[in-house]
Amino acid sequence: MKVHLDCIPCFLRQALEAVKMSTNNDAVREKALREVVTYLSQVKWTTDIPRIGTEVHRIVKKVTGNSDPYKQLKNKYNKLAAQLYPKLEFMVKNSSDPLFTALKIAIAGNAIDFGPKAEINLEKEVKNALTNELAINHIESFRHELKPETDLLYLADNSGETFFDRILLEELTKFKTRIVYVVKGGPILNDATIDDAKIAQIDKIADVISTGTDCAGIIFDECSEEFIEAFKKSSIVISKGQGNYESLNEVKDKKIFFLLKVKCPIVGKKIGARVGSIVLKAVSS
Amino acid sequence: MKVHLDCIPCFLRQALEAVKMSTNNDAVREKALREVVTYLSQVKWTTDIPRIGTEVHRIVKKVTGNSDPYKQLKNKYNKLAAQLYPKLEFMVKNSSDPLFTALKIAIAGNAIDFGPKAEINLEKEVKNALTNELAINHIESFRHELKPETDLLYLADNSGETFFDRILLEELTKFKTRIVYVVKGGPILNDATIDDAKIAQIDKIADVISTGTDCAGIIFDECSEEFIEAFKKSSIVISKGQGNYESLNEVKDKKIFFLLKVKCPIVGKKIGARVGSIVLKAVSS
Repeated sequence: MKVHLDCIPCFLRQALEAVKMSTNNDAVREKALREVVTYLSQVKWTTDIPRIGTEVHRIVKKVTGNSDPYKQLKNKYNKLAAQLYPKLEFMVKNSSDPLFTALKIAIAGNAIDFGPKAEINLEKEVKNALTNELAINHIESFRHELKPETDLLYLADNSGETFFDRILLEELTKFKTRIVYVVKGGPILNDATIDDAKIAQIDKIADVISTGTDCAGIIFDECSEEFIEAFKKSSIVISKGQGNYESLNEVKDKKIFFLLKVKCPIVGKKIGARVGSIVLKAVSS
Repeated sequence: MKVHLDCIPCFLRQALEAVKMSTNNDAVREKALREVVTYLSQVKWTTDIPRIGTEVHRIVKKVTGNSDPYKQLKNKYNKLAAQLYPKLEFMVKNSSDPLFTALKIAIAGNAIDFGPKAEINLEKEVKNALTNELAINHIESFRHELKPETDLLYLADNSGETFFDRILLEELTKFKTRIVYVVKGGPILNDATIDDAKIAQIDKIADVISTGTDCAGIIFDECSEEFIEAFKKSSIVISKGQGNYESLNEVKDKKIFFLLKVKCPIVGKKIGARVGSIVLKAVSS
């Protein structure tokens, strides 16, 4: 997805959030934010959203010297999600349609993305996801793909959300699909890295690899050969969250299932669902 | 008030709003927003808030060629407020403390400031203002000042809000104070100009002058001599809204009564009240 005019103030708002979490030094905060503003004044506004987002966060990390501004937040949501995990397991186990329940829970986990101020009530998000309809629901198309020979690539989004992904992964293993779980190659926003996948013990049920880079979403020309190979080899892709959607929404030669909570009107308009709704959208080759 | 780091994304958000209302031409929208971003990357971040705000809106007006982007919005709230006016008059008339009721209504009118998207329920704002306590209430100090020889300077804020001001002005005339009502010298945001004051028929109960410039709040070195003289001559000042507060909160040699609804956490912290609360704060010389 190319950047939209509405994204520009949003990048700056996000940069401010990251700057505040990076350092308490006011002079450094100002220096970092000003460098982001200067970058935004110079970059082409026809660039892809993830590419600008990535650069914005790289500037913040470079200027503040804090390589992982969202560290505390990530730890917090890893802990909260770990505590919730047994309940999620119980819900799936006692469901009449475990796969669909697990899918909904995995999407509910995508609510973990609202920055440090907004408290997210994870349990409430799960309850809402299980009670409410999906705004877009391509579950049958998804079921159709689940066969033993399927190579499934699962693109993770946020830390903590990894536990919600594990719920779904546990179900998927029952179909004997081969799964590669992809996290980020370095800290960006509150996105999951290898450490987070291990904390959720995903390495015990799937192959875990990284994109090889600290990009927002997926920027193919920055990714490692390992990731590119895995992407090419995969027969279907599960893509979690807006960042991955913004990166892959125009990919034509792959069956991709987008699982996400819509958090901005620009993405909502593109995908065809309102802000706040949850979506399982198939884009088939 | 000097600019705060949090103001920078907010200026850009406000610029985007103004840009969208100024033109439907995407290329022009981008050009205007980019020029604002460039300005923000270059201006000193120790500048006063109203000065940056003024320049941001001047850039939008210049690049888009639309000299009054908020024109439609201003008309809308002038109409809504005019319809509500008889009810407001009735409330004051039937109040046990007409002055205080009129003051609360005048502050409730300051809710007219949320941009084009957020629908403001004016009647609800008034009801809330009349029911809820003021977060800061210096009414007694204000009462003390109302004498026949008082020269009162009333600094207006938004269009439509002018009708709410008139409610208070009608009460103030009963104390035989001399009143000068000050609007902006040209369009900026949805701020009231001479036209708006006339629509609310304020020219029939007070002298109406303008700042002589299209500034946000008050920027003294830009204002007309007429305004400067009136300000100097005044014995007390009623200052409506955040823009005027940001301009005058450090003025020491004047009795100023700030009437406003707190709309941002930075102003809230400075004035000592939460976002959403309404305030009548005396800063006495």
